Amino acid sequence: MASVFSRIINGELPCYKVAEDEKNIAILDIEPIVEGHVLVIPKNEVDKIYELPEEDYLSLMAFAARVARAVEKAMDCIRVGYEVVGLDVHHVHVHLLPLSGPKDMDLSRPHKELSGERMAEIAATIASHIEK
Amino acid sequence: MASVFSRIINGELPCYKVAEDEKNIAILDIEPIVEGHVLVIPKNEVDKIYELPEEDYLSLMAFAARVARAVEKAMDCIRVGYEVVGLDVHHVHVHLLPLSGPKDMDLSRPHKELSGERMAEIAATIASHIEK
Repeated sequence: MASVFSRIINGELPCYKVAEDEKNIAILDIEPIVEGHVLVIPKNEVDKIYELPEEDYLSLMAFAARVARAVEKAMDCIRVGYEVVGLDVHHVHVHLLPLSGPKDMDLSRPHKELSGERMAEIAATIASHIEK
Repeated sequence: MASVFSRIINGELPCYKVAEDEKNIAILDIEPIVEGHVLVIPKNEVDKIYELPEEDYLSLMAFAARVARAVEKAMDCIRVGYEVVGLDVHHVHVHLLPLSGPKDMDLSRPHKELSGERMAEIAATIASHIEK
């Protein structure tokens, strides 16, 4: 069965999209630890990041850096952290987290409750900062 | 002043080396959260991972995946997590963490006290699993 991320990529489920290219998509995490918490996902549904084909892996990482620079510009933060865990959904996803301190890397924290309006606004702001 | 990682790379400070190539080095974290906690570091001393020159960045990420596959083979774990924070040392470093559960991503946990002998043994075991 397709992962929840593949269903989003295929348009079967909604998302707050930040960026997309041929091989990758970036969306807001629906359970954000901080405002501007983004997931960067390869369209190729593979479980572990270091098992992606090299071409897909390098494409994903280059895309993640491009999105990270946009998140840094769009959000109020010191810098942007990367986190790859994968114990829940078995489809590679890189968390990008705008950090105010080390606690903002803690994915086990209760997530923020943001309105759909606020989520759409954050996605649009980050999207506007993506380098062309 | 050169970062602690540049001083390790230049041979001024000791380390438990796992792998090295032209542009990158992988060493054991001297304050490991779990056994087999590795730092992957570009020789180019840059603060933020998404500000590395593209060539150095892609080289680093490809190298990190190669080391991650070795860590997974060498250590008793479900998978290997990636974490990039950078609030402490301002020289890019990717944490590779052999995971038994989500708590193993928590870099704020007290670190393990391992003997020099055990550290050397772990480094050698991971090194032996690096793909040629």
